[in-house]
Amino acid sequence: MQELKEKILSEGKICPNNIVKVDSFLNHQLDVELLRKMGEEFKRLLGGLEVNKILTIESSGIAVACYVAEAYKCRLVFAKKGKSLNQSTDFYESNVYSYTRQQEYPIRVSKEFLHESDKVFIVDDFLANGAALNGLIDIVNASGATLVGCGCVIEKGFQPGGQKLRDRGIKVLSLAIIDSIDEVNQKIIFRN
Amino acid sequence: MQELKEKILSEGKICPNNIVKVDSFLNHQLDVELLRKMGEEFKRLLGGLEVNKILTIESSGIAVACYVAEAYKCRLVFAKKGKSLNQSTDFYESNVYSYTRQQEYPIRVSKEFLHESDKVFIVDDFLANGAALNGLIDIVNASGATLVGCGCVIEKGFQPGGQKLRDRGIKVLSLAIIDSIDEVNQKIIFRN
Repeated sequence: MQELKEKILSEGKICPNNIVKVDSFLNHQLDVELLRKMGEEFKRLLGGLEVNKILTIESSGIAVACYVAEAYKCRLVFAKKGKSLNQSTDFYESNVYSYTRQQEYPIRVSKEFLHESDKVFIVDDFLANGAALNGLIDIVNASGATLVGCGCVIEKGFQPGGQKLRDRGIKVLSLAIIDSIDEVNQKIIFRN
Repeated sequence: MQELKEKILSEGKICPNNIVKVDSFLNHQLDVELLRKMGEEFKRLLGGLEVNKILTIESSGIAVACYVAEAYKCRLVFAKKGKSLNQSTDFYESNVYSYTRQQEYPIRVSKEFLHESDKVFIVDDFLANGAALNGLIDIVNASGATLVGCGCVIEKGFQPGGQKLRDRGIKVLSLAIIDSIDEVNQKIIFRN
């Protein structure tokens, strides 16, 4: 997605440890006009595949997932991290290791909102090692729903998560794939 | 907002401790069509007041805040909870006590995304004791930006948060105000 790549180049901040911060439009401040276009682009990339539920994970996946859900006129569900008093006691659970927070945490989706008949498209902001997507895929599999594919806004192509998912036969759609980050010269190279 | 009240009555679950769970459309599964209408309703209620930034807090505020930001064609910023390796070191901070998670946590907004010239409308999903809104107001005040008002989807009118904010002269707009919850008879009474 050309507009996204240009946005990453103009506003992304290259930090140590191969981190690109896109806090100005995706992870802290949100550019809703661009998010809407991302939602439409995911639908275009999926072609005519049927989708009736979007699954994401709090927090940074929620906004883009809203716009994918709007494109499909369907509901979205976001997996919750950790434990809350308000939470349902009947849920699908998986565990995810967060590299940015350096801890493992449980993620949960209430059984009420994911059914065997659902055709689920998983959406998230970043794909690096695939920890979050793998956790969400576990949950879809546990529910018996059909996994249509996974969409992520930015994939770090030099980390193994995306390739491992594709090797398992899972459809992975990324709006921008970064092949390398050169911190010294402050350059980001995208895959064509 | 009539459609929201009907949704709360038909899908809300009354739980002990005066909790109404609206996980089917606001806090876990999201009804994006209804969220869009909420965004437009907040703008209508604010009349012609100028707003150029929406501020919310992760996670449940993000979705509705997206649609308020779309109504105003402006950016939104969500305050982050806790600490992340990726986070900016230059931020406004406040502390919020969560009743559902029974712990206090810091919330932060990078100074990059909140400026003295901003006219900020704060949006959140629930207003009960006002802990989250008060934390966000602290941050707006620290930044020197102008607080236009606070909008929440569901206010628990029998808890003191909303009244305390109004007593301070802060404009508080709630799309539905619950005056009482009768757990025994499973009834929710709204304020007119």
